This record gives sequence, structure tokens and C-alpha cells, in this order.
Amino acid sequence: MDGSRLFREVERDGERDAVAVEEPLEIRVDGEPLSVTMRTPGSDEELALGFLYGEGLIDGPREAGLSRDLAANGVEVAGPLLRDPGSRRFYTTSSCGVCGKGALEEVAVASEPLPPGPQVERALLADLPERLRQPGFERTGGLHATGLFSAEGELLLAREDVGRHNAMDKVVGAALQAGWLPLHDRALCVSGRLSFELVQKAAVAGCPILVGVGAPSSLAIELAADRNMTLAGFARRGSVNVYAGSERIV
Amino acid sequence: MDGSRLFREVERDGERDAVAVEEPLEIRVDGEPLSVTMRTPGSDEELALGFLYGEGLIDGPREAGLSRDLAANGVEVAGPLLRDPGSRRFYTTSSCGVCGKGALEEVAVASEPLPPGPQVERALLADLPERLRQPGFERTGGLHATGLFSAEGELLLAREDVGRHNAMDKVVGAALQAGWLPLHDRALCVSGRLSFELVQKAAVAGCPILVGVGAPSSLAIELAADRNMTLAGFARRGSVNVYAGSERIV
Repeated sequence: MDGSRLFREVERDGERDAVAVEEPLEIRVDGEPLSVTMRTPGSDEELALGFLYGEGLIDGPREAGLSRDLAANGVEVAGPLLRDPGSRRFYTTSSCGVCGKGALEEVAVASEPLPPGPQVERALLADLPERLRQPGFERTGGLHATGLFSAEGELLLAREDVGRHNAMDKVVGAALQAGWLPLHDRALCVSGRLSFELVQKAAVAGCPILVGVGAPSSLAIELAADRNMTLAGFARRGSVNVYAGSERIV
Repeated sequence: MDGSRLFREVERDGERDAVAVEEPLEIRVDGEPLSVTMRTPGSDEELALGFLYGEGLIDGPREAGLSRDLAANGVEVAGPLLRDPGSRRFYTTSSCGVCGKGALEEVAVASEPLPPGPQVERALLADLPERLRQPGFERTGGLHATGLFSAEGELLLAREDVGRHNAMDKVVGAALQAGWLPLHDRALCVSGRLSFELVQKAAVAGCPILVGVGAPSSLAIELAADRNMTLAGFARRGSVNVYAGSERIV
């Protein structure tokens, strides 16, 4: 990813400083606007595909490209979608979290069962944040990151974004384009907290292990336990807390 | 706010641990579902009112109460709204950030001009996070906070939530109910990063000073400069970076 798109220099207190870039992105399907999200430019096609996959609107890679008429702040995705997104009521929300669901009981998108494996060492999970490259964060302090790892702890790909859900969508979208889904023998690691929606995105992508540097929420733990996912938080300084799916830890 | 609703005990690695509660909340207006957000229970009416105010859908306090048929995970707000929310296209997004906007140029909600004052000392801004009470975060490490301060640095009210935008909405909603809007002689302080949308919410509430513990995004700085707001980030250990509106700093 082009680092120059992740951050921008600004004048601050009379000096030059680098800040994370945030710009709106409009996702269009066959020319029809579907979603606007605030994101860090770069990997926009991956973001669009990962978002649609996580919402259950596509189940395989699609042609996607930047829309020039939106000055590169739009992505055009080829349809058709698996269902009409207008067939359920779309809600708006200003928070991190689930939206676009027609009723409280519909907050969870359906996902296939996760595999019983792989088996991993606790020390390896605790070390994943150290292996997650975050050049944009190091420069700005203002970017979230998601990394995809092999079960042996090898970093396969990483993405950064001002929005933590966007960073996850970009990784899932890149994995979709690479033909890597479902992520049955993989682990995902995020630089921040573990919300319900991040667990949901990992589950839909088929990933049985999700690690975070920050704290999990109550609903993140409940969903992980329900989906048989290993959920680990506070991965720092060689330590990690396991909140669900401890049977994968050896 | 009732602390017992902010966190919950879970079993983790064979021990008891406290995690931040995350549950869906449906906001209804005159019985019609408008929005579903993942939030920490408590101050739900304030959250609903603050959200609607920030979206420009109401301009004063409204009757609001928990909907019992949704097992307390719904808030019912009395209409009418200032405009039909269905009159513009509603988008869904999975990221922190702006959504529900029909076009890229419409991401910014209109707000009144901010006042030239108040004048504040830089050391005071740097100290606001220390004055922001966060009992839920201290217990779980998993909650964001927003605090409303007088220009002299007195904490007037504070709210915590798993979603940082929710914490801001709760504070704005509480201020709305108290008759304190616009917040012309106040400062807001958030426990995390400074996004475009947090600047927008502060601007709509009429607050001329916004301080964050974390980094600002490029668009947060641009919007703050455009609205004549003082925006300060990385407020830690007696230091603070000022990105816009430095004329209020003495």
C-alpha cells in the first residue's frame, strides 16, 4: 500500500507533523450508491469487497474499480448482489458497530461453522501484535491495523485505516481477491479493541482465531463462544487473555 | 450512571474478569424504527436524543423513554422530526464514521458559527483527560469516554460507552435535556482519537473547543479549521498538540 496515501503532513504548533488521512468513500454497485464510509485512501477495492462480503451481499470476488467521477473517492463494484440490499431496511448509525439490520435479532449475519483447529501456542498469540507491521501508525499514532497470519504466526498481509472495521474489511477483501477464503487455518490480529462486529466479520470470513491488543466487549465474547471462535484480548508484552475457544490453545 | 450496567463479570482463563457491556439499541421515532447502534446500556434516552440532534433531526429536547417491548434495548422518541429521515437516502456503514448521507458532499451536517471565545490556557487543555472520570474504563479497559467541561476546566458531566461516538452523543443528549445547548463557553474532551464525525458532533452542539487523548485525522483538522474550532490532540502527561483554532490558546 502506498504510504503517501496513509498520512499527510500538516502544520501544527508552527512545525510539520504527519496525520492519518481520512476521506469519504462511496461504494456503488452497478452504478447505484450503496454505502458511504470514512476511510483512509488505499486498498479501496479491497475495502468495498470485504464490506460486501461481511454483509453477506457477495460470496466471491467481483470486478471492482475506482470511479473517476468521484475523484477517486468512489468504488464501483459489479453486481449482481446475492440479495437486494433494499429488501431489508437499512439503518444509519454514528457509532462503531452493527447497522443496516432490520431488527435487533438480525444483528448477526449468518456464517458457516468454524473448524475445530488449528492448535496454537498461547505465547504465539501474545506475540502477534509484535509481528503486525504498522508503518502508518508509527508515523501518525492515528491508524488502526488488521493482520492476517498463518497458524505458525507468519504475517500474510496487513492493512491500516482510520477505522478499525475498515482495516478488517480491507484484509478480508484482499483475501477474497487472493482466493484465500474461508480462512480456516488462519488467525486475525487487530490493533485495538474487540467489538461484536469485528468478531462477526472474522466469523463470516471463516477465521477461527481472533486476537486483539485491546479489550473485548461482552457481546464480542458471547458471539465468539457461540461461533466456536478463539477470542483473545490484551495481547501485550508477551501476555494474552483468552475469553473464548481456549480448546485451540496448547 | 449505574456502574453495574457499564461492565459485566465473565470467566476468563479460569478467573473472574470484568468486561465492558455491548448490546444493540434500537432508536424509534413515533414507533418507527430509525437506527440500530451497538452501545453500552445506560443513558439510552440521552444517546438517542444526542444522536438525533447531531444528525440535525431535532433542535430541542423531546420526550424519550425505554421501549419495554424491546426488553429495554429500544428507545422511543416523540416526533415530529425536523425533516423526514427517509427524504434522503440512508446508507449503512460498518466503520466508525459518517453514514446516512446521500452524496459525498453531504457528509457535513450544517452547524451555526462558533463563538470567538473562550480563551484557555494550553496547560489546562493538556490536563482535561486527567479530570475526565472513567470508572468503567478503569475496571475494563474497554470503554471510551467523553467529558463536558467549563472553560475553567471543571468537569460538568461525563459518559462512557464501547462506542466513542455514542459517548459523545450521550453527553450532547444530556446537555440538550439540561438546556445547556449551544455549548459556546464549554470544552469537550474525548478519551480516544479525533475523527471527522466527532468534530462534526461538537460543532453541531456549538462547542468551540475539542480535546482528545489520541491523534486527529486529516479531515477532523480540516473541518475544525473550517468551523473555527480549537482542536487539540495527544493530550497526555501535561502536553497537548494544537491542530486548529490556536487563537483561543493563551
